[in-house]
Amino acid sequence: MQLLQLQTKVFADKAQTLSYLEKFIDDVITAQTDFIALPEMFCCPYENKFFPLYAEKHGGAVYQFCRRLAQKHRVYISAGSLPEINERGEIFNTAYVFDDSGREIARHAKMHLFDIDIAGGQYFKESDTLTAGNEITVFNTKWGKMGLCICYDFRFPELARLMTDRGAQIIFVPAAFNETTGPLHWELMFRSRAVDNQVFTVGTAPACDKSASYHSWGHSIAVSPWGKILNQLDRQEGYQFTAIDFAEVAAVRRQLPLLRHRRLDIYNLTEIK
Amino acid sequence: MQLLQLQTKVFADKAQTLSYLEKFIDDVITAQTDFIALPEMFCCPYENKFFPLYAEKHGGAVYQFCRRLAQKHRVYISAGSLPEINERGEIFNTAYVFDDSGREIARHAKMHLFDIDIAGGQYFKESDTLTAGNEITVFNTKWGKMGLCICYDFRFPELARLMTDRGAQIIFVPAAFNETTGPLHWELMFRSRAVDNQVFTVGTAPACDKSASYHSWGHSIAVSPWGKILNQLDRQEGYQFTAIDFAEVAAVRRQLPLLRHRRLDIYNLTEIK
Repeated sequence: MQLLQLQTKVFADKAQTLSYLEKFIDDVITAQTDFIALPEMFCCPYENKFFPLYAEKHGGAVYQFCRRLAQKHRVYISAGSLPEINERGEIFNTAYVFDDSGREIARHAKMHLFDIDIAGGQYFKESDTLTAGNEITVFNTKWGKMGLCICYDFRFPELARLMTDRGAQIIFVPAAFNETTGPLHWELMFRSRAVDNQVFTVGTAPACDKSASYHSWGHSIAVSPWGKILNQLDRQEGYQFTAIDFAEVAAVRRQLPLLRHRRLDIYNLTEIK
Repeated sequence: MQLLQLQTKVFADKAQTLSYLEKFIDDVITAQTDFIALPEMFCCPYENKFFPLYAEKHGGAVYQFCRRLAQKHRVYISAGSLPEINERGEIFNTAYVFDDSGREIARHAKMHLFDIDIAGGQYFKESDTLTAGNEITVFNTKWGKMGLCICYDFRFPELARLMTDRGAQIIFVPAAFNETTGPLHWELMFRSRAVDNQVFTVGTAPACDKSASYHSWGHSIAVSPWGKILNQLDRQEGYQFTAIDFAEVAAVRRQLPLLRHRRLDIYNLTEIK
């Protein structure tokens, strides 16, 4: 599977972001591209005050834009995430995946909200404006099962493990770490979740905009089930292609059978239904 | 707490290893040393054929040696691990902690046995000779609660999480990665378990002996709850002192409340009794 990750800019004008994105993809996509991954909040500046202003209902303009892109290029799209509002006025950070016919095949509302208050460092509380989702998201594709979560969700080893138990062989994570957590934990998180669960991990972040209030760490990354970094960008606008060979999942699990070696007679991780 | 980790040699002659160890500690210990950590299989070459030959009963010579060392220096000792045989003839890879009066305060039998078979790389199956333990190990000290597991045990995020839930603020891991898994996963594992659980992690390995069949990766390491490497050796014989400030555990958890942000209404990790 040929993966194309886009580390794109986010303009204050949503229409401008969408037309920029469409042209960006037109310019870089190849006939071999199978799957496009976009960043967290790829068309809304990452700031609490903007989430309500940019929020759309399910099936809104950004959603339709992504569907159309998938159809136009005949590719799957992990359509990053966007602020979405429901009929009760609650706003979610919601990620979608569309298949190559433009059909919605996954929808994930961020289930762990990022509230951080580091002495002398980052302060940000998503819970000031956002509501958390309550569903673990695994979806089917022609390449096999895949997992989807958003940024802070991936901090929690339980979630990655449960996606793996449900059959995910790759986990897509639209994300936006910052200048405090990025250097410390970005690579570490994508590599360790990949190694522990013997899956591919894919983190796609917006480019850093120094004029914005939140400075994205960028560094969009793709990691193999051995924990090797297959590709990683810097902080600027950019894109990268990665060839994903799903046979590597089975090969790694055969050589070092971590999942089989779990002591499920001693501990038990379950999803509460 | 002043921690002293010893990355020591393992001689074929057990008595030689013990007298070498005693002199090593005499030479490097200071009046401020609170806690000594020794490597996995610190007095038995890491090879299946040696485990039965070097195995002792509970309270045997190596055990008594470690007790005496603790008493002599008035220090706590995480006494690495040794092969131990029970009344049924089963052999375990067993770790002990003695307090500064020489009292046994923790005993852990490795509960995940390391069986690996990497194409063109490492082949090793502990399960050829060893029996797995069945207990998660957390113990009390005057500094607070601590966790103890052995090498491959630490590959499993469930175990570190459950030790954390039981109150461990530091996890001691006598370990011996190899030349395949070491460069790929050693640092990653100690850093990611530290970050995910917001605890200190301490990995203590034997020095590399190129004349032995198993080439230890060494790299004894101490990591902070932020995932920062406080200290790390290379592969040669050596030692390192690390000042552990347990107040950092609470500070990190206050700034980024990962444990509190878990969605325990969605997933549940439990110890099976």
